[in-house]
Amino acid sequence: MTKKIRMGMVGGGSGALIGAVHRTAANITGDIDLVAGAFSSDADASRAFGVELGLAADRAYGTFAEMFAREAELPPHERIQCVSIVTPNDSHADVACAALSAGVHVICDKPIAGHLEDALRVARAVDQSGLLFGLTHPYVGHPLVIEARERIAAGEIGEVRRVAVSYLQDWLSRAEDTKASKQALWRSDPARSGEAGAFADIGTHAFNLVEFTTGLSITEVAAELRTVVAGRTLDDDGAAMFHLANGASGLLSASQVCSGALNALRIEIYGDAGSIFWAQEAPNAMTIKYRGQPDQVLRPGTNAGYLSEPAIAACRTPGGHPKGYLEAFANLYAGFARAVRDYPAHGDTGCASVADGVAGMRFIRAALLSSRNESAWTRLDGGDN
Amino acid sequence: MTKKIRMGMVGGGSGALIGAVHRTAANITGDIDLVAGAFSSDADASRAFGVELGLAADRAYGTFAEMFAREAELPPHERIQCVSIVTPNDSHADVACAALSAGVHVICDKPIAGHLEDALRVARAVDQSGLLFGLTHPYVGHPLVIEARERIAAGEIGEVRRVAVSYLQDWLSRAEDTKASKQALWRSDPARSGEAGAFADIGTHAFNLVEFTTGLSITEVAAELRTVVAGRTLDDDGAAMFHLANGASGLLSASQVCSGALNALRIEIYGDAGSIFWAQEAPNAMTIKYRGQPDQVLRPGTNAGYLSEPAIAACRTPGGHPKGYLEAFANLYAGFARAVRDYPAHGDTGCASVADGVAGMRFIRAALLSSRNESAWTRLDGGDN
Amino acid sequence: MTKKIRMGMVGGGSGALIGAVHRTAANITGDIDLVAGAFSSDADASRAFGVELGLAADRAYGTFAEMFAREAELPPHERIQCVSIVTPNDSHADVACAALSAGVHVICDKPIAGHLEDALRVARAVDQSGLLFGLTHPYVGHPLVIEARERIAAGEIGEVRRVAVSYLQDWLSRAEDTKASKQALWRSDPARSGEAGAFADIGTHAFNLVEFTTGLSITEVAAELRTVVAGRTLDDDGAAMFHLANGASGLLSASQVCSGALNALRIEIYGDAGSIFWAQEAPNAMTIKYRGQPDQVLRPGTNAGYLSEPAIAACRTPGGHPKGYLEAFANLYAGFARAVRDYPAHGDTGCASVADGVAGMRFIRAALLSSRNESAWTRLDGGDN
Amino acid sequence: MTKKIRMGMVGGGSGALIGAVHRTAANITGDIDLVAGAFSSDADASRAFGVELGLAADRAYGTFAEMFAREAELPPHERIQCVSIVTPNDSHADVACAALSAGVHVICDKPIAGHLEDALRVARAVDQSGLLFGLTHPYVGHPLVIEARERIAAGEIGEVRRVAVSYLQDWLSRAEDTKASKQALWRSDPARSGEAGAFADIGTHAFNLVEFTTGLSITEVAAELRTVVAGRTLDDDGAAMFHLANGASGLLSASQVCSGALNALRIEIYGDAGSIFWAQEAPNAMTIKYRGQPDQVLRPGTNAGYLSEPAIAACRTPGGHPKGYLEAFANLYAGFARAVRDYPAHGDTGCASVADGVAGMRFIRAALLSSRNESAWTRLDGGDN
Repeated sequence: MTKKIRMGMVGGGSGALIGAVHRTAANITGDIDLVAGAFSSDADASRAFGVELGLAADRAYGTFAEMFAREAELPPHERIQCVSIVTPNDSHADVACAALSAGVHVICDKPIAGHLEDALRVARAVDQSGLLFGLTHPYVGHPLVIEARERIAAGEIGEVRRVAVSYLQDWLSRAEDTKASKQALWRSDPARSGEAGAFADIGTHAFNLVEFTTGLSITEVAAELRTVVAGRTLDDDGAAMFHLANGASGLLSASQVCSGALNALRIEIYGDAGSIFWAQEAPNAMTIKYRGQPDQVLRPGTNAGYLSEPAIAACRTPGGHPKGYLEAFANLYAGFARAVRDYPAHGDTGCASVADGVAGMRFIRAALLSSRNESAWTRLDGGDN
Repeated sequence: MTKKIRMGMVGGGSGALIGAVHRTAANITGDIDLVAGAFSSDADASRAFGVELGLAADRAYGTFAEMFAREAELPPHERIQCVSIVTPNDSHADVACAALSAGVHVICDKPIAGHLEDALRVARAVDQSGLLFGLTHPYVGHPLVIEARERIAAGEIGEVRRVAVSYLQDWLSRAEDTKASKQALWRSDPARSGEAGAFADIGTHAFNLVEFTTGLSITEVAAELRTVVAGRTLDDDGAAMFHLANGASGLLSASQVCSGALNALRIEIYGDAGSIFWAQEAPNAMTIKYRGQPDQVLRPGTNAGYLSEPAIAACRTPGGHPKGYLEAFANLYAGFARAVRDYPAHGDTGCASVADGVAGMRFIRAALLSSRNESAWTRLDGGDN
Repeated sequence: MTKKIRMGMVGGGSGALIGAVHRTAANITGDIDLVAGAFSSDADASRAFGVELGLAADRAYGTFAEMFAREAELPPHERIQCVSIVTPNDSHADVACAALSAGVHVICDKPIAGHLEDALRVARAVDQSGLLFGLTHPYVGHPLVIEARERIAAGEIGEVRRVAVSYLQDWLSRAEDTKASKQALWRSDPARSGEAGAFADIGTHAFNLVEFTTGLSITEVAAELRTVVAGRTLDDDGAAMFHLANGASGLLSASQVCSGALNALRIEIYGDAGSIFWAQEAPNAMTIKYRGQPDQVLRPGTNAGYLSEPAIAACRTPGGHPKGYLEAFANLYAGFARAVRDYPAHGDTGCASVADGVAGMRFIRAALLSSRNESAWTRLDGGDN
Repeated sequence: MTKKIRMGMVGGGSGALIGAVHRTAANITGDIDLVAGAFSSDADASRAFGVELGLAADRAYGTFAEMFAREAELPPHERIQCVSIVTPNDSHADVACAALSAGVHVICDKPIAGHLEDALRVARAVDQSGLLFGLTHPYVGHPLVIEARERIAAGEIGEVRRVAVSYLQDWLSRAEDTKASKQALWRSDPARSGEAGAFADIGTHAFNLVEFTTGLSITEVAAELRTVVAGRTLDDDGAAMFHLANGASGLLSASQVCSGALNALRIEIYGDAGSIFWAQEAPNAMTIKYRGQPDQVLRPGTNAGYLSEPAIAACRTPGGHPKGYLEAFANLYAGFARAVRDYPAHGDTGCASVADGVAGMRFIRAALLSSRNESAWTRLDGGDN
């Protein structure tokens, strides 16, 4: 094992779900040391939480600005090399731009920003800095999702014809959920979530999963976003028909008000030669069906010789040892740590790229426009979009 | 057992898949005797096939017109009481109207007709004759689909919010399939299939399943129908967003070119209190999910005390004895036979009604109009529609 | 369709589960006419029930002896050709022997008899008469069970090493179940069930499934049979280790007191090249696993080209149309009807043979002996056994 | 976060599967620092690997004896507090006893030793030292396995009647596997594996899972262990009937030659009120069945309010985020780290205890004795055993 990467974190303070997930994911890799952080918008709480996490007291900062300023004063072999951004959507862009200005690589929770314009700002900053930027869509860190991408790229299901993707949850299904938790609160608040609600929070995962696995861009959407639970401003439920760059058609739904759905992300991809099925809640099986043949069910494992090399590389244990959400997430961090260590040899972070992040925001924008325009077909690359 | 119902059949000659299915379904009930028929457009073949089926030679007719004429000359206790229509779509209406004119009850394969106008003609004939008309959407004959309807009607999942239904097959996924079988041939031919292809053949099943289970009408659609395989005239693939009468949203897809899909009809219904899942290919389980509770998996059986009375009545064996497609189909015939026997006491045939059939045609018409109009939202009840 | 086979029935009167199942199975084939019967030990009830079933009044008999005597007086083209025996176990042998003496082919519910000695008596009668005898173990009528047999015979999983079979139910799990139904009553009564309880009723199905699929005889068992629910005489739960003729090992369990189990018959067969999995409650999938390869999931269908010819022949519909318990049962009746029609051309009834039935009784006997002898290994062919 | 626990490791050098698993499990907790180790029987390789892992060079030791001696010379707040033992079975006892003598708590891979006598030696050493000892049976670290234990203890399935547990693999299914890997090599060697092969390696997991979930001791076995693949000395396949302390019966199988099985550990527990089903390869679902009710399927999650407190505590993420093998393993390390930190306040390590380890060895011993004695019922507590 070579030396560990030194990482800072912004956001993810006490009680935040996703911050703890990012930290555990980083731990799993064994490649990353969390050495600094600004975890809360309350400076005292931020510092206290950093100490609680075991950071040196002088690297538990009150604000991210302070962190970037002070870390820059440390010797190169001590200062943070990268930062993990796990704040609400609206501040992703500001933190990311500050990090890049300070020469710090960025790994950022999705979506890349609250608004398309902010996403474009991040993209410019990444471009100008030449630094690494990784966006965490963890579901594409699953070995079998990687396998799906590899097989489709290799033509194993032929030309893609039809895609169905859905991401359904129920944790906002009731009016009282809107303010029941930190997570719910900011996600329901346009000032912090950004221009969309469910479509930003989970619709972008579904969008990314389609583009990642098929290798095709979504070019246009006919969408309907709704606010089902009274008293909300942002969409909590929606669906779209979409077209892929090769002419294929698809259906996407994203909802946080579907009672009984936990974290039901599921994709089906039909080609002219075969089809592929994967569900996030049962990630250790991917089914491939060819007409007139038995279904094939693939399982991840370091010893699964029938898998592609990238899929095997995403496994830590042999077949029959279930891999979970945190391991998939850790695969993003492992790739990012590798890219930081090898920088600037290559930019392959194993995460979604800043371009993927911008594409996700264009998807949100187009879906919103379509929805306001009686579900008219709307291009993602349209003018200002 | 009271006396068996005497039935004739039109269509379903040698090599026809669906004719044999209807006959077996009728056999399973033990309530129906097939005593006459006109099985083929070739009069000689028709008569020969009737004899092969074991009919008396003088009731194996050359044409349906001949059948209705000659049967009417038999004493009331000998002549056919009902007819099963299993011809290609385009002739359903003519045969049905002839039957009704002859005083014969009708059970008819779906869709009710090739075009909406023909469906309306059948509806008028049913209305005028006062006779029974049952349309065979066999999937709603499954005990657990009946249970879904009962539970939704009882409010167990609350107000319906979102529906997803898909019906995918692959038997027309290749160009050479278009002419590979009788079934493929007429379904791909506008003159015999009617105004739509996949949407008529299986989209109507999906449509019916939604309306049956939710008890709600589909009011409008934004649809895209496509011809994926070159050389075809009719749609072989398509999808739609739809609205239900209560304001709920849904997604529907119907395709016969999804490689690897056998007969993949599946429905998910999300309410504000819970959700319901059922898949035709595994019909002996229905899952109900409530937020914050374990999933519930229901199984059909005469002894499944937690099921509603209508669902139990649709079972022939105790729990743990899998029920299949033919049994679901037989439940339609059992209901129809009961209605014939009790006629005119009640009109509950256990089948879809002529109104349901017309609704299915309105769905096809609206989907086609929407598709030709850039997927604009189109009402099912719109003017001429 | 050639002329239908004329069948009588013994047992299966009002309220009897299995009699109705046999009649429906026969109906599904379309090849059999039930024309006579003695349905109950109460002669009046028997005759009344026959009339209720639609039989001619003079062929609704009071006793089976009367039926065989009177039918023999009918012209050959009118009299019954075969009889279906669906009485409690203890009378199977007497009825079967009476039928064979009367020149009537026999299809008999399992187990073949209440005691091994009676089974041997039937075997001798079959041998002497040269008539057909079919025993109904319906689970081996499933297309995929037939496919398992074919694939194992073809060496596709190599040499069988280990088998696990279990058949668990819960309908006798409580003390009050013992007398709650006709079915429970006679099965719990040694005078009518025979020497064993659960092992006779369902253990023999598990035994038969092993021998049918592997093509290997079970040679010895180390068993433990128990009476779990107080107040019973016969076993209601038990298990055994067993050896197959090729040296393979296996585990078998059979219980009717496993709360929550409906009709949980399941088999797993491991060879040196691959393994096969099938479960009765989800009969439309069979999984084959080869080391280092994706699992394969097979589906039954008339168009499933990858299936063997016998498995395809056991299907009535294409893939994706679920086949159920009654269809599997009907496959036995279809085979039996074919053998009756072709008699004496061949003796392949598609059912278990009289030898299989005797083997099942030897299994029961050996399991009982082993259980009484501290689970000592006991041969099935041992001496008197 | 309080200060991290300082841990050493013995075994788990380059290429060892289980060593890496233990290290990742410890990483996931975020509570443990690996600061010392002796990883290989080759002293140079051991030191080199420790450095490769990122240890300080002077704490990458050549032997475990050296490690315990030198660590004892460090100040108390620097020296290792505990050691993880991941060597082949035969050396577990020696390393454990050395650690305990040195005042170091022990977490040890299963089985506790190669032979019962060694296990008893460890038990005495634990007793005399008063130090912590945790044995890693990771499968009982799954939230739903913990839930099973809690529900059974609470009487939710009533009195346990029948248990079926099997643990099947295929990685030793061929003769050439015997020497194909480090793992295979020592497991097939009596000098290093101990008195049993598959029964020691995975049979003990199955044994432990039964006792953990039911809360009942296995009192006697009737077993058959075999060597299926020629050229081996130890069992590679076996099965047993067993009795639990309350009189319940069970079946257990453990095999490493079942082609197609990856890591197929599965348990079914039937009580007089309900039954519980769990399979290691799909660990995020546990089914509970009650007679006459829908099946219930439970899912793990921090927000799964229907789960018991201990099961929720074993979750890191909300429902719908699949938990895997490594997380279950990490739960053992988290519990062990907590016990070390709190020492000597309580001895609850969250792992199997030394007594559980001894019980596992008694199970192996009794199974071997039974197998050599024609599968005679053999008590686990029998005299010398």
